[in-house]
Amino acid sequence: MAKESKNLDDLFHDGLKDLYFAEKRILLALPKMAKAAESKELTAAFEKHETETGGQVERLEQIFALIVQTPRGKNCPAILGLNEEGKEIMEDFKGSAALDAGLLAAAQSVEHYEISRYGTLIAWAKELGLTEAVPLLQATLDEEDATDKALTELAETIINYEAEAA
Amino acid sequence: MAKESKNLDDLFHDGLKDLYFAEKRILLALPKMAKAAESKELTAAFEKHETETGGQVERLEQIFALIVQTPRGKNCPAILGLNEEGKEIMEDFKGSAALDAGLLAAAQSVEHYEISRYGTLIAWAKELGLTEAVPLLQATLDEEDATDKALTELAETIINYEAEAA
Repeated sequence: MAKESKNLDDLFHDGLKDLYFAEKRILLALPKMAKAAESKELTAAFEKHETETGGQVERLEQIFALIVQTPRGKNCPAILGLNEEGKEIMEDFKGSAALDAGLLAAAQSVEHYEISRYGTLIAWAKELGLTEAVPLLQATLDEEDATDKALTELAETIINYEAEAA
Repeated sequence: MAKESKNLDDLFHDGLKDLYFAEKRILLALPKMAKAAESKELTAAFEKHETETGGQVERLEQIFALIVQTPRGKNCPAILGLNEEGKEIMEDFKGSAALDAGLLAAAQSVEHYEISRYGTLIAWAKELGLTEAVPLLQATLDEEDATDKALTELAETIINYEAEAA
């Protein structure tokens, strides 16, 4: 297709492919982060979000079906970069008291990426009249928001204190 | 330094270097995005944020001074990935009605990355008793929040409609 004739449908489809790739990468990263975390509370938070992420992948597949497209990922440099930061923290802070604080922060930057992208897809879905896609995207956005808030609370009540107390 | 003895001070310093690198990259990307945007409102929004970003770099330099460190960046794979997505949109949607909607979304995902990182640095600064750093970080966080909200409003009032109407 000539790029001049591309429209909001194409942008929505691209965004869906981008998030499908991203969620699958997150699904691979979360068990590694859960294993690396020192605190059982942080491990539990990562494991809980891993389960949710599986459901989020399924919701994206339902949306691909709604727009009559095969579920397919598209290389997403943003999530690769964000995951790379998580890996660097694991390497640079392994064995240190600040490891969990760093892992938690890396996870929150991934959450914020998703919050931004799901918010955008909801706005585009509304504009395109894809009314059945909106509640699916909103359900995931609500989970990402809740995960981000739960991580903030964990940071402020336990993790940052332990990082500093060491 | 042995990584086992690293602590929250090191994590804060690393986070500061990461954001210093990121803000400087954003400062390079914004004029290109302003030039690429079709709508004068989006160009103006990017130009306004470019000016703000210059001030945000200076605030980071003030914080480096507070912790008696030389301002220095640290390769930040996340911002490189996020900027890459912006470049892909410019290439893939050049000349199309959906270009601005894509550029705006790419800018919002950068804003969300910064919102996440500044929020984290504020929590760490409080934990570390770096009381003078907190208002500097908060001032930038407020600007990033305001930019994100202004972009959402622009998307919902003009940009998404134009992308769909074409």
